[in-house]
This record gives sequence, structure tokens and C-alpha cells, in this order.
Amino acid sequence: MPLSMYTASVPVYVQYLSALAGVLKKAEAYCAAKKIDPNVLVTARLFPDMFALTRQVQIATDHAKGSLSRLAGVEIPSYADTEATFEDLQARIAKTLDYVQSFKPEQIDGSDDKHIVLDIHGNKFEFSGADYLMRWALPNFFFHTTTAYAILRHNGVEVGKRDFMSAQ
Amino acid sequence: MPLSMYTASVPVYVQYLSALAGVLKKAEAYCAAKKIDPNVLVTARLFPDMFALTRQVQIATDHAKGSLSRLAGVEIPSYADTEATFEDLQARIAKTLDYVQSFKPEQIDGSDDKHIVLDIHGNKFEFSGADYLMRWALPNFFFHTTTAYAILRHNGVEVGKRDFMSAQ
Repeated sequence: MPLSMYTASVPVYVQYLSALAGVLKKAEAYCAAKKIDPNVLVTARLFPDMFALTRQVQIATDHAKGSLSRLAGVEIPSYADTEATFEDLQARIAKTLDYVQSFKPEQIDGSDDKHIVLDIHGNKFEFSGADYLMRWALPNFFFHTTTAYAILRHNGVEVGKRDFMSAQ
Repeated sequence: MPLSMYTASVPVYVQYLSALAGVLKKAEAYCAAKKIDPNVLVTARLFPDMFALTRQVQIATDHAKGSLSRLAGVEIPSYADTEATFEDLQARIAKTLDYVQSFKPEQIDGSDDKHIVLDIHGNKFEFSGADYLMRWALPNFFFHTTTAYAILRHNGVEVGKRDFMSAQ
């Protein structure tokens, strides 16, 4: 199957969001096994002014839903960003997975040259659809899924690269 | 410009390897300013059985050179993995950037359906070229560039998302 805007996005998000859900499931089991308050892990961060685990998961899912919506030209669904437990984070990922999987190839394919404009705190970024996906949305998505993994790994959760890559 | 195997790989690697070089440059300057032995940072890791900074940079560059070589059907250049200083890491990234930029679109484009076989410690993984790039090589590349960034951020280096995304 040739590379297309759809094959470069939807299956990638599905694989790595499912893997992220698996990593969080192992983190929750780790809390139970070690009698650690799960709140310690969902609020953990790698440095005081970095985002905590919860926010990493929120932003990763935001990039998935935001990029597909922009490429398809539909309104981006707004999520409330109120997640505070592993259960909440799982629900957010599940909701995002449903949304990602609702897109049909014909909604995304052909958006390569679509003019995409982002307004980030008053800074305007303009891209073609292809550049937006490959050089902004996917790198940011992986940045936040990896940082979520790194926060948990740093706190002793026994996960490995295989967990990062696919639901085990 | 339509998405293609070339536009989905070479410009992405160039942008994020250049950004990684910038992050490491800031880390080296941070060591000088704070009178920290640079060896502390190049050997830093987020957990005892995770790879140190040096190895993260080595693996990130391996995914860049490995994926383009496999997609183009040329031999993968072997690097000695002996880097031990920031200067060594910069040289490795520069060498990888030269290699990545040596590929012409016609060497990479059309590799979407190429049969790619990886042998990882005796485990065989088979992909189409497109799946290999999008679901294996790029995610792994970003996993290791992000982890390098996270190690430095965790150690107080003042870098932000902009540094991760492009050389500042």
C-alpha cells in the first residue's frame, strides 16, 4: 500500500495510542503491587517546570485529534483536560482512539498540499498538510508519548521499548 | 509537494537531527556555565537500566542512517559507537546529517511497498517500506531524540520544546 496522508497518520496514531494505554495500565498495576498512591505517578514530572504525566497524555491525544481534524477540515473536538486518575487517562485515550478510527481514507488523503495555519500563543505557523503532519504533528505526538513513558520509567515502572511500540 | 517516502523521511531527519545538535550544544554550554563535568551529562540516564545520553544519540542516528539505507537498498554505513564526549556526539550527528542529505528523492521515492526485513536479536520483523518508515523507524528515531532531550532537561539544561523542534 502506498504511503498516503491517511496511512502516515491514522494507523500510526492507533498503534502508538494503544501502546500508550498499555504502558499506563502497567503503571497502574505497578502502583497496586508496590502500594504506591497512583496520584504520585499521574502527577510525576522529570523536572519542576516540565509537564506532569497527565498533561503529557493530554497533549499527545490533542496532537492526534487536532491533526486529523485539521487535515480533514472538520472541527476539532474539545476535551476538558480534567483527567486526574489512570482511569481518566485511559478514558481519554479510548475516546481519542474512537475519534481517530472514525476517519475514512478519503477524508485525509489528498490533504498533502492543504494550507494549515496554527496560532500558538499568538505565533502563526503555516504549513502544507504534509509538512504539518510529518514535521509538526507526528514529532510532537511522539515527543509527548515518549515523555510519558520516560516519566514512568524514571519512577521504576517496568516497561520496555516493546511496550512503547505496541500494546503488550 | 505531495507526501512521498522521501519527503516523509529526509527533511524530517534533517530538521530533528539539527535540533538535537542544538540541544547538545546548549547542554555543553550549561556544563561550562555551571562548572559541571560534561562527562556527568553524556553518561546520564533516567533509570539505572536505561541507556545513557550517548547511546540515545547513537541509536537515534542509527535509525536515520539505517532506514534511508534500507529504503534505498544500499549498505548501511557502520559507525563505531565510541562517542564519549559532546564533541564526539556532535561529530556523529554531523556525519549522519551529511549521509542523510546525500540521498536523492529518486533513491527513496517508490520504496513504499519494498519488502523490509529486520532481524533484532533473532526476532524477525517484516514490513512494507511505508510501514517500516512510519511505524518503526520514525517512532524509534523520535523516541531516542526525545529521551536524549528528557535526560538533559531532567538534569537542569534549559531547553524547551522549540529546541527539540528546530535548531535555535
